[in-house]
Amino acid sequence: MSDAGQIYAERIKRVQTEMAKRDVDYVFVTPSSDLIYLLGYAAHASERLTLLGIPSDGEPFIVVPQLEAMRLDDRRDLLDIHVWTETESPIKLVAQLVEGGRELKIAVNDQTWAGFLLGLQDEIDAERWQSANEILRELRMVKDAHEIELLRTASRLTDEAWEEFVATTKFAGRTEIEVGRDLHRLLTEKGLEVSFLIAASGPNSASPHYITGERVIQEGEPVLFDFGGRWQHYTSDVTRMVHVGEPSDEYRKVYDIVLRANRAVLEGVKPGMPCEDVDKLARDVITEAGYGEYFIHRVGHGLGLGGHEEPYMVAGNTTPLQVGMTFSDEPGIYLEGKFGVRIEDLLVVTEDGAESLNNASRDIVIVE
Amino acid sequence: MSDAGQIYAERIKRVQTEMAKRDVDYVFVTPSSDLIYLLGYAAHASERLTLLGIPSDGEPFIVVPQLEAMRLDDRRDLLDIHVWTETESPIKLVAQLVEGGRELKIAVNDQTWAGFLLGLQDEIDAERWQSANEILRELRMVKDAHEIELLRTASRLTDEAWEEFVATTKFAGRTEIEVGRDLHRLLTEKGLEVSFLIAASGPNSASPHYITGERVIQEGEPVLFDFGGRWQHYTSDVTRMVHVGEPSDEYRKVYDIVLRANRAVLEGVKPGMPCEDVDKLARDVITEAGYGEYFIHRVGHGLGLGGHEEPYMVAGNTTPLQVGMTFSDEPGIYLEGKFGVRIEDLLVVTEDGAESLNNASRDIVIVE
Repeated sequence: MSDAGQIYAERIKRVQTEMAKRDVDYVFVTPSSDLIYLLGYAAHASERLTLLGIPSDGEPFIVVPQLEAMRLDDRRDLLDIHVWTETESPIKLVAQLVEGGRELKIAVNDQTWAGFLLGLQDEIDAERWQSANEILRELRMVKDAHEIELLRTASRLTDEAWEEFVATTKFAGRTEIEVGRDLHRLLTEKGLEVSFLIAASGPNSASPHYITGERVIQEGEPVLFDFGGRWQHYTSDVTRMVHVGEPSDEYRKVYDIVLRANRAVLEGVKPGMPCEDVDKLARDVITEAGYGEYFIHRVGHGLGLGGHEEPYMVAGNTTPLQVGMTFSDEPGIYLEGKFGVRIEDLLVVTEDGAESLNNASRDIVIVE
Repeated sequence: MSDAGQIYAERIKRVQTEMAKRDVDYVFVTPSSDLIYLLGYAAHASERLTLLGIPSDGEPFIVVPQLEAMRLDDRRDLLDIHVWTETESPIKLVAQLVEGGRELKIAVNDQTWAGFLLGLQDEIDAERWQSANEILRELRMVKDAHEIELLRTASRLTDEAWEEFVATTKFAGRTEIEVGRDLHRLLTEKGLEVSFLIAASGPNSASPHYITGERVIQEGEPVLFDFGGRWQHYTSDVTRMVHVGEPSDEYRKVYDIVLRANRAVLEGVKPGMPCEDVDKLARDVITEAGYGEYFIHRVGHGLGLGGHEEPYMVAGNTTPLQVGMTFSDEPGIYLEGKFGVRIEDLLVVTEDGAESLNNASRDIVIVE
C-alpha cells in the first residue's frame, strides 16, 4: 500500500472506532469533502451514485459508475470496488452489499443528495438512519501537520494574489464582475483553483453573502472581497477591503471597530476555550462600540477540505478548541443602504494561542 | 410583480398542479438548479439551510439565513420570507410552517443535503417522504424559447472560445492543467462562468470523466476537451479533440466511427421518439463497427440550468422526446491504455428533428 493509501486506511479505521462507540453499523459517504478526506477521491456529486460504505468492522466497499471506475485503480488495495453500468441500479447494488438480517443503524454523510437517501431508505430495511456528521467531525476538526501545511500554502498564495491585485488594479468605473475577474486570474496564476469570490461594492458590501454583479464601482466607495482558492483540495478563505478615494469618518470608525474585533479573536483564542467564546471575543468589541445589532452572523467557521465545516464559532457551540483546529476569524458590521465592513483571516489553534495563516495587510487601502 | 416575478409565479403554480395530480402536500426545494428555476435565486448549498416550501395550494414560503435575507428583497411579492438567525434552528422553523394534523406527503428535491432531510424527518411527522424529481422534471425537461436562447448563446460563446483556443494554443510539452487554464481564460473572456473543464491527454482520454492533471502532452497524442460555461445560469457542454502531430490510422478510424455515431443522433432524432432510441441511434453505429463494448456510457443527458438533468438518453428510458427538450449527443469509444474519442454537441428537439447548438468544427484538428 502506498503512503497515501496508508493514511486513508488509518482514517477509515478511525471511522470504525467512532462507529463502535455509537453502535453504528454502516457509514455511507458520497462525493464531498468527506470522501476526499477518507479516500483522496475528488469525485463530483452527480446523478450517478458513487458511495463509499464503511462497515463497523471489516473491509469497506465503494459503488462507482463504470465510466469513472478507472479513476479508482490505485485504491484497489484499500477497498472492494463494485462497478455499475448505465442500465443497472446503484441503489440496489448498495442494498446487496449491506449485510441485513439484523436491526441496522446507518449513518449518512450530510452532503449526500436526498434523492439517493430516499432511494436507499426505500431499498434497505434499517432501524435508524442518521447523520454521519457526529462521527466524521471527530476526525476532521483537528488538522494534522500536513493539512495545516496545505492550508498555509493556500493562504499564503491567496495573500500574494491579493497584494498583487491591490497594487495593479483600477477599480473606479469598472463593474464588480470585471474586477473580480482580475482577482480570479491572479489566484489562478498562483496555482490555486478558485473556490469562490465575492466582490461587493458600495451598499452591496452590507450584504454578507452578496452575489457579485454588474454594479459599477464609484469613487468614494468601499469594495469588499471575500474569496478563496484550493491548493491540493484545501481551501483558503480571506476577506479584505479596498476604498476608492478617501473614506468617510464613519467608514474609518467602523473599519477600526471590525479590525479590533478581528484582532481580539487572534489574541484571545486559547486551546480549551469553547467555540462560543471565540464568537464572544469579537462580539463584545462590536457591541461595546454600539454596533452589536449590525454584526448579523457568527464570527467564524472551520475550514479545511470544506469551505465551511466544523467547528463553528457561534453562540451555543460549547465544543472546546483543540490544537490544530483551523477556523475563520471574520467579524463584520453591515449598515444597510450604506456599506459593510468585514475582515477575515484563517487561524490555526496552537499550544499557546492562535496563529494567523493570512498576513496580507489589514490597513485601510485607498485605491483608484 | 415584475416580469421575472410573473414567470416564477407561473412555474410555482405549475408545481402545484403537478402536486395535485400526485396527492403531494408539500414540495421542499433547497439551493440547486431547481431553486434557480422556480425562484431565480442562485444560492449556494451550504450548512445554513435555505428552503423553499410549496404547499399544494396557497402561498409558498422560504426559510433563509439572516445574512442572506437581503438577497431576496425583490421576491417579497412572490412568497412569505422567514428569516432565521445564527442561533435559531431552521429545521424547527420549517416544521412550524408546515400545517400538520393530517397524513402528510412531502416531496424533496433530489439535491437537498441528507443532513437536512434527516433533520426534517425527525422534526416533521409525515406519512411519506419522496423525491420531488417526478414533479420538477415535468416542468424543467421542455425548455421555453427564452431558455433555448440562453443555451444557444452559451453554446455559441463556447464554440468561439474553442476555435480561438485551437488557433492560438501550443500543446506539446505542456501539462493538461496548463492548456486547460488557457481554455478557461478564453471562456471567461467570452463572459461565461466555467462550469467544468476536462483536459485528458493520450491514454487519459480513455477515462470518460478523467480529472485533469499534471501529465505532459506528448507529440503524437490526442487531447480530449470536455467543457462548459454558464450564461445567465444556463450551461453549455461540448467535447472536442485535438491531435498533436499526425494521427495513427487507428485514431482516424475510431474518430470517424464516433463522428458517424454523433451525426446519426442529430439526423435520427424526432419528436415522439423514446429517449432510449436516441441512445440506440449512436450505439448501433459503434456496435456495427465492432467497438460496442468500448462505448461505456449512455449517449447523452438533458442540459439546461443543470449540467446533467432529465431526460437521460439511456436504454430503459421510454420518455418520449418533445419539442424544446435539450440534450447532449456524446458518443465515445474508450480504448484503455491507448486513447479515447468523444464528440459532443448540445441538441434541441425541433418540430421535424433536432438542431445542434454547437457548430465548432468536428474535423480532426492537427496541432503542435
